[in-house]
Amino acid sequence: MLRSPSLPTRMRTVDLIRKKRDSGELSREELSFLVSGYTRGDIPDYQVAAWLMAVWIRGLNHAEIAALTEVMLHSGEVLDHSEIPGKKVDKHSTGGIGDKTSLILAPIVAAGGLTVPMISGRGLGHTGGTLDKLEAIPGFNVNLSLGEFCRVLRECGMGLIGQTAAIAPADKKIYALRDVTSTVESIGLICASIMSKKLAEGIDALVLDVKTGSGAFMKKEEDSVRLAEVMVETGKRMGKKVVALITDMDQPLGRMAGHSNEIIECIKVLNGGGPADLRELSLELSAWMFYLGEKARSVDEGRKLAESMIASGKARAKFRQGIRLQGGDERVMDEPQRLPKARFHVDVTSAAGGFITGTNCEAFGIALAMLGGGREKKEDKIDHGVGLEFHKRIGHRVEKGEALATIHYNRDAKLVEAKSLISDSYHIGERAPIGMRPLVHRIIGA
Amino acid sequence: MLRSPSLPTRMRTVDLIRKKRDSGELSREELSFLVSGYTRGDIPDYQVAAWLMAVWIRGLNHAEIAALTEVMLHSGEVLDHSEIPGKKVDKHSTGGIGDKTSLILAPIVAAGGLTVPMISGRGLGHTGGTLDKLEAIPGFNVNLSLGEFCRVLRECGMGLIGQTAAIAPADKKIYALRDVTSTVESIGLICASIMSKKLAEGIDALVLDVKTGSGAFMKKEEDSVRLAEVMVETGKRMGKKVVALITDMDQPLGRMAGHSNEIIECIKVLNGGGPADLRELSLELSAWMFYLGEKARSVDEGRKLAESMIASGKARAKFRQGIRLQGGDERVMDEPQRLPKARFHVDVTSAAGGFITGTNCEAFGIALAMLGGGREKKEDKIDHGVGLEFHKRIGHRVEKGEALATIHYNRDAKLVEAKSLISDSYHIGERAPIGMRPLVHRIIGA
Repeated sequence: MLRSPSLPTRMRTVDLIRKKRDSGELSREELSFLVSGYTRGDIPDYQVAAWLMAVWIRGLNHAEIAALTEVMLHSGEVLDHSEIPGKKVDKHSTGGIGDKTSLILAPIVAAGGLTVPMISGRGLGHTGGTLDKLEAIPGFNVNLSLGEFCRVLRECGMGLIGQTAAIAPADKKIYALRDVTSTVESIGLICASIMSKKLAEGIDALVLDVKTGSGAFMKKEEDSVRLAEVMVETGKRMGKKVVALITDMDQPLGRMAGHSNEIIECIKVLNGGGPADLRELSLELSAWMFYLGEKARSVDEGRKLAESMIASGKARAKFRQGIRLQGGDERVMDEPQRLPKARFHVDVTSAAGGFITGTNCEAFGIALAMLGGGREKKEDKIDHGVGLEFHKRIGHRVEKGEALATIHYNRDAKLVEAKSLISDSYHIGERAPIGMRPLVHRIIGA
Repeated sequence: MLRSPSLPTRMRTVDLIRKKRDSGELSREELSFLVSGYTRGDIPDYQVAAWLMAVWIRGLNHAEIAALTEVMLHSGEVLDHSEIPGKKVDKHSTGGIGDKTSLILAPIVAAGGLTVPMISGRGLGHTGGTLDKLEAIPGFNVNLSLGEFCRVLRECGMGLIGQTAAIAPADKKIYALRDVTSTVESIGLICASIMSKKLAEGIDALVLDVKTGSGAFMKKEEDSVRLAEVMVETGKRMGKKVVALITDMDQPLGRMAGHSNEIIECIKVLNGGGPADLRELSLELSAWMFYLGEKARSVDEGRKLAESMIASGKARAKFRQGIRLQGGDERVMDEPQRLPKARFHVDVTSAAGGFITGTNCEAFGIALAMLGGGREKKEDKIDHGVGLEFHKRIGHRVEKGEALATIHYNRDAKLVEAKSLISDSYHIGERAPIGMRPLVHRIIGA
């Protein structure tokens, strides 16, 4: 309450907490004081926890979000690939079920001549993680040092690693605190967390894939759009080219979920096949990356370039090279049986006939995690062989007793529960839904 | 975000934080889970810090405040004086400058036959603390064990000690956390903090002196009234008789501030003298205590009883007995020179002639603390001899160069600063203010 007029003016954490509590705007210096003090360990968890709750409730404006992102970015190393010619571009997805486009677009875009320095995350809860998927490939090492990562990038134009302690350490510490203080779902904090890590990769441009729907982190389109707008604005304030695609997550992307399963499906797309929706979204995202990375004069031209990378086999060869350079068994490209495989499988059949009108998409991810193909807690080990195969999509007709999905599993501990969860997740109606939503709902920042 | 449907339903701290974050109402069981978990050390500081900020912003309703108070009360020992006949009553003040009525009304009310089990606090910032004032008396021991406290109460009907670890330990821990997370000024949290400690004294009735004005914790009358209403409601929900007086703190109470200074002034009132405002408020509060404690059939009758306790010398004798029983030098009653005294004094004179129209009352307390007569930080030692003497009150005429106040000091380190702070705190106008505010603005809960 009381500030003695005799005290000299110096920054105090309690005053910054109070300022945000009272809906004030924090300056770059104030945010820097908080974030660097916390990262160094000079400001305790409990003060940052109170501040995070004030931020959650009161919000952050565009200037605060950009400043917070910058401060978090500079809490650690920022990669510099200036010795590699050409633009460095990346894509970030907010996550969903069967969302595996990274493993397709990285080789496409690298084959097309850009550099893709991809620092990815692991799965938790209902969404999968790129790193976990890559680890289904025997020998694949996602834990390269930043030096090794840069060498791989120089050699083949793509690299896929996990966040190291050197990258945005402030984000790591703040995220862990948000997780236990119910302050995760804040647009400003989410944006700063994502953008600080992505910009630490040393990129020139970023394509954001912001999912929306029942399987997405943001279930409502308006929330997805708001997050996308804030991320695009933040990236632009930091001098980067950024575009966000709001894409559909009302049902799984592709036909496969689970780790080995998804690697197999990615290889199919790189071979020119695979399910239409996955191929379509991978090409669209690649097209934007080519355009922002100045390899194409338009998104259309980017798309043609992406298609040609698949048709020519160059993308496929690039993926093979990438696997080899990170210690993985490149033979999986032709011999999928080298990937971990579940011993058993069982169909989930439809209790009624009709049309699929929608899905509770998140529940597929939960069922997968229950069976060991995902993490319920951070410490959980993943069974890469476990997976789901989806036979029906929204709008499809299904007969009573027909298979909706197939479960590939090793342990039947929670199988009954998982089966009924999956079965209940398909909404079946008498009539086909009218007016299907497109895969890409809108584009923000173009 | 995600709660797996497979998890059993059990209480989790993150869910309770989220509930309050989203403006939900917490049940008694949920508040008990939080408070007892935190007191035991099972719930970490950072989770409670986030919850406190959510509470600060979203607020607590009457039921939540009563439940929180009860849970905090029962986190420690609740005294039981059932072996002492008659009612047990206490007074609590939200604090102000020169607010020393406890030391006057406790002997008055004890002399009148009620028991006053007073557990008090120390001063911090601009307000003084009863314990610190008592410690100006050589030998006075405020650190009695609860057993010794009860013996003193049995023997003389009054006892004055500090909060022990056994009383409301949850409050102690939560208050310390609020202090460093900018979550102090919350009506619900303030109420639970005060009421849990006061009800732990084992009282039947409580008179609240809620200060309002420039020297009070609550500067605006509407805030003081709200706090008073919430405390009265909480006390009543817990089966106690409670009344709150909203009293003036736009200027110091009495003519003296500082520790020895205030003891001297209290003895003057107990001797039948002293400044009118201090005597008046002490009698008014005593009157309500006699009424709620069923020693008087009306507040008027209580007032007459209080006056007779002074006139008969019984209150004075009671204070002497109380000092002796707590190890203090009772000779201070007649020999004020036995109290610590500052070596130097200097007048603060008026820079202009006119009428005192108001004061920035809080600044007097800050000036006192700067000179060593109060605490800027918890660890600071108090110089009991340091004090302020106020010569002019609101409405008084002052000539240019006339003394407004006298500073009693030992070190001149911050003397110049303190002088100008005091001088600046008197608002002087050409005309006398019209319509003086009464000492007692209103009574809540009668």
